[in-house]
This record gives sequence, structure tokens and C-alpha cells, in this order.
Amino acid sequence: VPITSYKAIVVYDGTHYYGWQKAEPHKTIQGEIEKAIAQTTGENSLPEAASRTDRGVHALGQVIRFTLEKAKSPQQLHRSLNAVLPCDIRIVQLEECDFHPTLDAIGKKYFYSFDLSPVPDPMRRLYAWHIYLPLDLEKMINASSHLVGTHDFTAFTNDSSVTITPEKNPTCTLQSIEITPEGILIHGNRFLYKMVRNIVGTLVYIGSGKLSADCIPNILVSRDRKQAGVTAPAHGLYLHQVLY
Amino acid sequence: VPITSYKAIVVYDGTHYYGWQKAEPHKTIQGEIEKAIAQTTGENSLPEAASRTDRGVHALGQVIRFTLEKAKSPQQLHRSLNAVLPCDIRIVQLEECDFHPTLDAIGKKYFYSFDLSPVPDPMRRLYAWHIYLPLDLEKMINASSHLVGTHDFTAFTNDSSVTITPEKNPTCTLQSIEITPEGILIHGNRFLYKMVRNIVGTLVYIGSGKLSADCIPNILVSRDRKQAGVTAPAHGLYLHQVLY
Repeated sequence: VPITSYKAIVVYDGTHYYGWQKAEPHKTIQGEIEKAIAQTTGENSLPEAASRTDRGVHALGQVIRFTLEKAKSPQQLHRSLNAVLPCDIRIVQLEECDFHPTLDAIGKKYFYSFDLSPVPDPMRRLYAWHIYLPLDLEKMINASSHLVGTHDFTAFTNDSSVTITPEKNPTCTLQSIEITPEGILIHGNRFLYKMVRNIVGTLVYIGSGKLSADCIPNILVSRDRKQAGVTAPAHGLYLHQVLY
Repeated sequence: VPITSYKAIVVYDGTHYYGWQKAEPHKTIQGEIEKAIAQTTGENSLPEAASRTDRGVHALGQVIRFTLEKAKSPQQLHRSLNAVLPCDIRIVQLEECDFHPTLDAIGKKYFYSFDLSPVPDPMRRLYAWHIYLPLDLEKMINASSHLVGTHDFTAFTNDSSVTITPEKNPTCTLQSIEITPEGILIHGNRFLYKMVRNIVGTLVYIGSGKLSADCIPNILVSRDRKQAGVTAPAHGLYLHQVLY
């Protein structure tokens, strides 16, 4: 059977989801999109994503691929999927395109959002990490320069199997880390499990004085998760863009 | 009994509330703050607000007054109230001050937030009105100039009793209306029931061509609610600031 492949860019508010990956009986982004495809086309087709975002993580530019046995026009499919998807998941672009959502990706950008107001902003409580302590952004920017480049990021992943599984590659290249009072934008070629949130938590610890400004090289070399800072909460994280 | 009076500035996400005013068994902002006062001081004290925001309306600068028989330090009270209030209601400022929250107010500013992106932004679905049709902001700005100044705003209120109750004053003065792609900021000395949302709905109808660009003077003169546009939805509206 010839199949038609579609590429879509999806934005979602992860607050009420158990993450991207289908995990019944939980509500997941993958599960909701699968349901929407079935509802509008009658076909069972499990979408694949560029990034399996964790529970509570948001996406501004998730990229997914799914296939249909009976081709539909992208415009029609786009409209009908959005008509049945929950309003916290929106497809912003859809085209006919065959590609591999993870293997073809040459990089990803994640944004981590801060709320630095003295009293947490109620409107942002689900969309940014409120930080009580004053942050020394200059210190954080200096420290982040030691993370940019190609390194073994074992110390920054919560996947402890990295250290004992030779097939798992702990080496990633970060192209840039941009730090502003609004948050941190990280561009890398690939990311380990919870790596962004561990980098953010570590930089926030440096900015608030809980870790010394020059600790990054030692943490990287240690390959020990316990040396790095806290895992930043999920609700501040956005999959910003996937680059192909 | 001598009483101590407090003034507080409150920010809230109105999504999950039935509005400011206590209306049991519904969850209301007034009810939650009353409960928090009782919990932290043991006193029954109903707070009064500058604006009785409707169900689903947000506040960036609601001003409230409440009294205590046993005085507490503002710093301590501020901290302890925020510790027990739900996280979608935050006190951002609190001081000892006697005043009348409505009568002493010389003006108010409301902000109405738009989402003009082609596909509604899931992260803003509870905080902005998504408008599908392209808006001609220039037309809206021109039309809004006919609303600025002192007018009988009967045509812009959903309180139909205004027309038959001589004690009700339908005259308001709007100091300014600022229109940008982000939304509309309206500054006035006082507002009738649903007046901001009716002004916004009417301006959006003008911007999208559903009402003619020069209709405002006729609508004002008509004193007929049916002549004006739709009532904009509650979730885009923010009580922005109360001026004393």
C-alpha cells in the first residue's frame, strides 16, 4: 500500500499532559493527536515527534510526522485536525513531506522561561519558573560559556544508564546559550534526558550563589549528576524549534 | 473597637473564579481573600475592591481594602496571606492605609488582550481573545477617537436598567484608548457594567469590517445596546490599574 507522509509543526501547552509519549491511561500529546487523526481520517496512525517532551513541558515548535494510507490535502487535514484537537494543542503548519523527525534533525532549540518578579505572577505560574533569589546574570553568562561546544554531558543527565551503557553517546554539542532576564535559549545538536533542565538549574544555582561561578568545567569532568544543580521544573521549559 | 485598615494590590488569574464578588457556593476572589484573612488572623473581615471584576476576568492591579481589629505588621500580613492564598491570586503590595476603594478612585485602566496569530496560541488561550479575521487597526484607532471624552455610554452597557433608573449615571469620561496589535488599553474615570468588553467588541467589529468605521457617534446617540458590537469574551480582559 502506498502511504503519504505528513510533517506538522505543533504548539502545545503541556500543563495538563503526561508528556509527548503515549502512556495510557494518561493524557498525552501523542495520544491526543493519534485520536484526532483517527477521528478525521478513520485511520490508525501513531505520530512520531522530534522530541519526546516530558510531563508538563510545553512546545512552541514540536515537529511531528505521521502517515496516511488514503492521502488528504494538507490544507483540509490541517483544518480538520485543529477542529477536533483540544484547544491546548494546535497545529500551526502542515505539509506533505517524508522525513525522519529525529534522525533528520540537525539541531534543536529549547527555551527556559523565568519569572523574576518579587511576587510570582499568577498568569505565568504555569509557564515560567519563579525565582525568589536575585540572579547574577553576568555570572551565569560567563559560566555558560564553558558549556558551549562539544562535551560529555553525563553530569547533566538524569539518565544514569548513560554511564554504564556504552551504546549511549553522552557527547553533545551546544552551539549557543543565550541568557536574559526572560530566560535561557539553548541551541544544541542533541540533548540527553533532562539535560536542558539540569543545565538551567545549575546556571540558576550559579546565578544565586549556591554554586561557584567557575564550577562548570569540574562538573563536566566529574560525569557525576550529583555535582550539578537542581533539575529546573518542567513548567518553565519550551521546545522552541527543531532544525532540519 | 479601634480598627486598622489595609490597602493591598492584588494580581489574579480569573480563569477559575466566578468573579470578584462573593457568591457561594462559587469560588470567588473576594471569598478566597476573606478565607485567607480568617486563616491568618482569626478575624472575619470581608475585603472590598475597587472593581468587581466579572467571572473569568483577570487583574494586574486590583486594589482592595480590609480591616482588622487586632493590627498586624503589613510585612507579616503580606507574607502570611500569600502563603495561604491559592497560587492564582497574589498580593503584590500591602500597606496600612485608610481609604475608600471605589469612591476615592479617580480613574481606572483596563487592558484587553488580543491574540492575532493565524492559529490560536495554546499558551494564551486563557489570557487573550483570538481573532481570526484581519483587523484594520488604523480604522479602529480612528473610530476610538469618538469614544474618548465625556459621553453617555448607555449603548455600551449590558445593564439595561440604566435607561429606566434615573439614579444611575450613564455618563463616563474616557481619557484615552490605546490600540496596538497586542490589545487595547482604556483609561476612564468610571465604567458601566461590561462597558470595556462592549467597547472592545465594537472596535473589533469595526476593525474586521462588520461595522462601518464611522458608526460610533450614531451608536452613542442611540443609547441602544443592540447598535454596538459583540461583548468581547471575559478571558481577554485585565483590570490593569486603579488610580487614586
